Amino acid sequence: MTLTDIAAPSVFETVESEVRSYCRAWPVVFERAAGSRLYDEDGRPYLDFFAGAGSLNYGHNNPVLKRALLDYLADDGITHGLDMSTTAKRAFLETFRATVLEPRALPYKVMFPGPTGTNAVEAALKLARKVTGRQTVVSFTNAFHGMSLGSLAVTGNAAKRAGAGVPLHHAARMPFDDYLDGQVTDFLWFERLLDDSGSGLDHPAAVIVETVQGEGGINVARAEWLRGLAELCRRHDMLLIADDIQMGCGRTGDFFSFEEAGITPDIVTLSKSISGYGLPMSLCLFRPELDLWEPGEHNGTFRGNNPAFVTATAALDAYWRDGALRERTLNRAARVERALLDLCGDDAATGVAVRGRGLVWGLEFADGERAEAVCRRAFETGLLLETSGPRGEVVKLLPPLTATDDELDEGLGVLARSVRHTAGRRAA
Amino acid sequence: MTLTDIAAPSVFETVESEVRSYCRAWPVVFERAAGSRLYDEDGRPYLDFFAGAGSLNYGHNNPVLKRALLDYLADDGITHGLDMSTTAKRAFLETFRATVLEPRALPYKVMFPGPTGTNAVEAALKLARKVTGRQTVVSFTNAFHGMSLGSLAVTGNAAKRAGAGVPLHHAARMPFDDYLDGQVTDFLWFERLLDDSGSGLDHPAAVIVETVQGEGGINVARAEWLRGLAELCRRHDMLLIADDIQMGCGRTGDFFSFEEAGITPDIVTLSKSISGYGLPMSLCLFRPELDLWEPGEHNGTFRGNNPAFVTATAALDAYWRDGALRERTLNRAARVERALLDLCGDDAATGVAVRGRGLVWGLEFADGERAEAVCRRAFETGLLLETSGPRGEVVKLLPPLTATDDELDEGLGVLARSVRHTAGRRAA
Amino acid sequence: MTLTDIAAPSVFETVESEVRSYCRAWPVVFERAAGSRLYDEDGRPYLDFFAGAGSLNYGHNNPVLKRALLDYLADDGITHGLDMSTTAKRAFLETFRATVLEPRALPYKVMFPGPTGTNAVEAALKLARKVTGRQTVVSFTNAFHGMSLGSLAVTGNAAKRAGAGVPLHHAARMPFDDYLDGQVTDFLWFERLLDDSGSGLDHPAAVIVETVQGEGGINVARAEWLRGLAELCRRHDMLLIADDIQMGCGRTGDFFSFEEAGITPDIVTLSKSISGYGLPMSLCLFRPELDLWEPGEHNGTFRGNNPAFVTATAALDAYWRDGALRERTLNRAARVERALLDLCGDDAATGVAVRGRGLVWGLEFADGERAEAVCRRAFETGLLLETSGPRGEVVKLLPPLTATDDELDEGLGVLARSVRHTAGRRAA
Amino acid sequence: MTLTDIAAPSVFETVESEVRSYCRAWPVVFERAAGSRLYDEDGRPYLDFFAGAGSLNYGHNNPVLKRALLDYLADDGITHGLDMSTTAKRAFLETFRATVLEPRALPYKVMFPGPTGTNAVEAALKLARKVTGRQTVVSFTNAFHGMSLGSLAVTGNAAKRAGAGVPLHHAARMPFDDYLDGQVTDFLWFERLLDDSGSGLDHPAAVIVETVQGEGGINVARAEWLRGLAELCRRHDMLLIADDIQMGCGRTGDFFSFEEAGITPDIVTLSKSISGYGLPMSLCLFRPELDLWEPGEHNGTFRGNNPAFVTATAALDAYWRDGALRERTLNRAARVERALLDLCGDDAATGVAVRGRGLVWGLEFADGERAEAVCRRAFETGLLLETSGPRGEVVKLLPPLTATDDELDEGLGVLARSVRHTAGRRAA
Repeated sequence: MTLTDIAAPSVFETVESEVRSYCRAWPVVFERAAGSRLYDEDGRPYLDFFAGAGSLNYGHNNPVLKRALLDYLADDGITHGLDMSTTAKRAFLETFRATVLEPRALPYKVMFPGPTGTNAVEAALKLARKVTGRQTVVSFTNAFHGMSLGSLAVTGNAAKRAGAGVPLHHAARMPFDDYLDGQVTDFLWFERLLDDSGSGLDHPAAVIVETVQGEGGINVARAEWLRGLAELCRRHDMLLIADDIQMGCGRTGDFFSFEEAGITPDIVTLSKSISGYGLPMSLCLFRPELDLWEPGEHNGTFRGNNPAFVTATAALDAYWRDGALRERTLNRAARVERALLDLCGDDAATGVAVRGRGLVWGLEFADGERAEAVCRRAFETGLLLETSGPRGEVVKLLPPLTATDDELDEGLGVLARSVRHTAGRRAA
Repeated sequence: MTLTDIAAPSVFETVESEVRSYCRAWPVVFERAAGSRLYDEDGRPYLDFFAGAGSLNYGHNNPVLKRALLDYLADDGITHGLDMSTTAKRAFLETFRATVLEPRALPYKVMFPGPTGTNAVEAALKLARKVTGRQTVVSFTNAFHGMSLGSLAVTGNAAKRAGAGVPLHHAARMPFDDYLDGQVTDFLWFERLLDDSGSGLDHPAAVIVETVQGEGGINVARAEWLRGLAELCRRHDMLLIADDIQMGCGRTGDFFSFEEAGITPDIVTLSKSISGYGLPMSLCLFRPELDLWEPGEHNGTFRGNNPAFVTATAALDAYWRDGALRERTLNRAARVERALLDLCGDDAATGVAVRGRGLVWGLEFADGERAEAVCRRAFETGLLLETSGPRGEVVKLLPPLTATDDELDEGLGVLARSVRHTAGRRAA
Repeated sequence: MTLTDIAAPSVFETVESEVRSYCRAWPVVFERAAGSRLYDEDGRPYLDFFAGAGSLNYGHNNPVLKRALLDYLADDGITHGLDMSTTAKRAFLETFRATVLEPRALPYKVMFPGPTGTNAVEAALKLARKVTGRQTVVSFTNAFHGMSLGSLAVTGNAAKRAGAGVPLHHAARMPFDDYLDGQVTDFLWFERLLDDSGSGLDHPAAVIVETVQGEGGINVARAEWLRGLAELCRRHDMLLIADDIQMGCGRTGDFFSFEEAGITPDIVTLSKSISGYGLPMSLCLFRPELDLWEPGEHNGTFRGNNPAFVTATAALDAYWRDGALRERTLNRAARVERALLDLCGDDAATGVAVRGRGLVWGLEFADGERAEAVCRRAFETGLLLETSGPRGEVVKLLPPLTATDDELDEGLGVLARSVRHTAGRRAA
Repeated sequence: MTLTDIAAPSVFETVESEVRSYCRAWPVVFERAAGSRLYDEDGRPYLDFFAGAGSLNYGHNNPVLKRALLDYLADDGITHGLDMSTTAKRAFLETFRATVLEPRALPYKVMFPGPTGTNAVEAALKLARKVTGRQTVVSFTNAFHGMSLGSLAVTGNAAKRAGAGVPLHHAARMPFDDYLDGQVTDFLWFERLLDDSGSGLDHPAAVIVETVQGEGGINVARAEWLRGLAELCRRHDMLLIADDIQMGCGRTGDFFSFEEAGITPDIVTLSKSISGYGLPMSLCLFRPELDLWEPGEHNGTFRGNNPAFVTATAALDAYWRDGALRERTLNRAARVERALLDLCGDDAATGVAVRGRGLVWGLEFADGERAEAVCRRAFETGLLLETSGPRGEVVKLLPPLTATDDELDEGLGVLARSVRHTAGRRAA
């Protein structure tokens, strides 16, 4: 930074709101991106192990998707479509049915609830309440479901919740898998509350769950726990909502992260990587018998983001016609796990816990300062990493699924050096 | 529709949720669009007097914006940027400051609250509550502010509200301009409640207002009423939030619809036409002293929709460096008004009321059936029009600001014929 | 106060909470009471124009009621009865039916909701919500319905509301009679909201109203306005709840204060003077078709305050077998009105407005300081008076209905001197 | 019941609301009571092991209290006193200080929040929220705190909660002592939620607890658990509210039921037996530094039930100047426990669990039908008993503390016969 810079703060500092966040951790101006790398305006490359918080599973500006998008735009395809029928939407629906729904025998209806994850969660909550006539939705400790008022009520983070400025209601909290001491029977508390008419828990409309809590600190639910939850929902007549916004679209290997557990949620939310190109898009899927919406009962201006439909269709075509991506991701999962365990050894010694599945992994440090120091050091060495968890104590790895083996090794190498570099130091 | 069609319902009917709405009024599949026209897959053109519910003020696939967008994408510009600093965002901020803020001496900070209007409203409400430490927000009869839980609470429509499935709180309703009998002094009730500590109105954090209620039925607030409201807010220490999502970006002539009244709201929401190309984007603007956000206190995956920043920048450059578009819109306003008054004569005779400002106009019929019939007839004749108002009784005109005089005349002609065609008939 | 007193603050100051209120205005220790007078421990008499905030319509320790009570207690009658059947309750129900319900052809069922007014209001609100399946209850500006959370939500006073410590919901506020400028048509705003599905008013379960707002400042609704309200409720399928806790039991002449208007509310709450002896008791009355309670769905330990049933029965027997008390009260109303108008002349000159009905009257001063000064002066001269209204600006007169003509004249005389004494002075 | 009775349903059936409850279990009309016995109008005696749901710890019409009350009323003492200072209130405050507060070194301020338990709980919740500026109050599974909206929100029973007709908020539920499987560490879940800023539990203002849950099924918290809770509150800056409405005034031996655990709650609610004579009265006690009430911020018409102050004072004088009653109660506890264990043997065999402390005991049967049959049989044999627990599965014993040894033995004998009589039968 030169004297001139000091004299003239950037437009980000003078005009953009103080609410901005990631740009503080990565104080450069990005200009270009391709595959697994971003480039700042000075041309410096950054290996991206953040992938738009899971929105870029197929990498930046994936050439297959890019081609489809440029063609569509060049031909004056519809860009803004509200919920009109368009050829782009039809192609998406047909491809989604052919590549995602039919192969998995999922009967879901597809709703376009608005282009962001929180739109999808709001729609899912509305529908669950409408269908059941009940109001309480159960969510889990350290859940993250979005920042609009309905989604925030089922989110755990205290600082985000405080931002609401009003009390958040109609939600009840349960312990996520392995939240307590490792001794307590799964769902002991939850089922006791449901069985006991004096418990004070109003019968819930639904349970909303992430199979892996990304923002919450890469907390991985066991398949067995997810099956127990699905069974509990069935037994107690509660709808099960899987929020697969961050973990869907192949992040854990399967297209849906809940496939491994062999469960079929009643409602599923998808967003982030569904468009495949970083364009805003989200879906709310549900069993057809739940489709009790009145026309227009939930609406929104940008539900029909047709350019996103185009890239989404191209991504499904390119990656989900067969099982290759899934297999590759699962292979890489093993490779990453090995590397991280090599790095951290057993926690007892290093105090670092390793958790993950597919291509989402976390290293839990003793405190947020250390995790932040690791990310800062990684950034200085050209690797983008972010923290998560309630105290920011978890370094989160979300590389593009399309990263090459070399890129993966490169990133894991930088990470290892950053961990070692920061050992025994306090964050500056 | 042929027998084959009957035998094979479309993917929209079999896979897409029943919540879909506009596509029911316009039962064709759109493929392409340019300027003021959409084309269905059979190549049939439709003159668009709906403009993406106000999202396409510069027309479909505006060539200036298209060029900028194609170049950006071709060059592998950042698409997905969360809230990282990018060259595209910097260009947008600088251009927005130069073309919008500085010429109007507006000191606003700019927040990217997520890419949709309801994200911006949620952020505005959060900030107003955080800054004041109060919770109640006053909104107006027939207001529409969005479909997520926070925005829905300040929205009037009963059917939309019922969709929430939970009670909606922290909002108080006041009569919009000219809501009562035309005799009652402006703000009589509102101010009485504020002045009286026994009134039961908890001191509001803020008032949220649309200068012209689009979804509510093209209800146009007088400049004098808006000034009265701003003055009331000042006197009673309430923040004034102008929701300019549909009426901003030149729809009424000026860039902001409240400029005519000479007021400066404390918080402004913008969306719909801000990207100019139909791409999801929204802004929340506020006085710098209100910028008390903690970093990351409100976040969201698609805040940094960089392709939208690119088209937004191009649109500001092309249309807001001078006053030409504003002037043209105001001229057209007069032309449209004349045509509509010619059509409807005095209400007493035709029972049709004409209301509007800039290039947003409404024809209020006695009931929703007639208004729907007019729109159906217009559609059959190649013109897209929608209804609004609590009973769908208002035919709404939102032509692109860039429509040619011929297009305007053509549309008004179809409208006139549709009105006459449906006179004396009941909707089928 | 002597030096000793100063050295030893009373147990009220050292042990009782700061929340105590009336004892601050009347800093003596009361010991005994009979008829219209209280006596402090030094034997000094105070003429009581407050009557336990309307709980002592038949005076203090009314000898007829006292006899019945002493006999009952001496004979070991049941004191505490939950909701068991007792001879005392049977006598009350039979007498209430014979003296109150049957003569007025009122078909009400009788519920014992707990012994205080706020218990009755809570029960009324619960029942209205249960029966209609709706949640919003409309109440009026300056309404006072009680201090528990449900009742407080329909109460207007800002300081009381703030005491809740949580936001108060499920209530909508409408202007009480003559709240606005005297020009606005009755129920213009209310009916407009009900008629308009875009108004944002969720269809109310019920409307709760006081015919004369006591705590709110002795605001008297016209019979015509009450009839309009009843008609509005009927037309829009809302239950009408008359809160007759302070104004019932003959305070306005008739047993129920709404009789004058010729209306029959769906639900009525009674308390304060129903036991007649100042003992805690309340009733919730409702049309039989609304009696959808499950056994025990609302309960409470002190619903069956049998000593109160005994005095209540004695009071009904003594005062409501014929129309004598009613007639006497109406005659006195005229006498009091005349005296107050003589005192205050026309408001224009004195700045004091006179309002009232039956034996509840108010003098509205320009500010609370003056009204407080009047009450203080009256106290010094041996008359108990209290203020009401949002700013404490109204001196409230609630003499026992059994006060003699001499007592009435005496009190009015002290009041007149107190008003004159404080003219032109600031409260100390 | 005669043919005449059948032809003429009683006034209770025709006029009183369907909400009535206890009178259905005990279908006689009570007339008189003394000591441990009630008498119906035919003179038939009933031994009372219900004691007004804990309101008659000193028996019915206790002669010492009766004398004081008759004298007070005969002398025209103040009956209704709002919150004026009276000699009766002074005597109560001085006696309460001398017999209750000072001997236990409790510094509490005393508030008269209205005459019922739910008034006291509403006041306690308001104060906790006001003092902390927070809103959530933690309560426990199967808690019962009252039926007004604030108290109901912290109550567990589903049927009672449903009666609200609106969602109940600002409460979070935790497991009461021994609620789970007997293996889980005390407060494991609670403390985890408090320690984790991502848990979704907004920092509570307070915790409200009953040491023995009466309505919830005679669930007895261990002293150790209560100490753990007090310590947790201290460590996490939450106020501890002990709701001692049913278990206070000596029911468990000590005056306050929490004394055994050696803890000092921040706020205590008392009601039921505080007046000692079944007259409505309640208290809210709190540490002096919490006494931040504004004068009149919480009020109510019947706060100053002076006849209740008189009997309360007499009861404290008679029973709490020394430790005799306490000792006697603890001795009887042992006697009752022995008898019940003799009756039920080990649960494994009889399927009946015995729980209790002091003179509150419960027999938990497998279902509500059996418990109801036991109570019905007992009633037929002249003993009043009630059920509690979420399914009505617990027979509850609450004899007067003043019952003689013979009465105690008599009641236990009837109970034993009723249990045996109903063994192996289904409820009719």
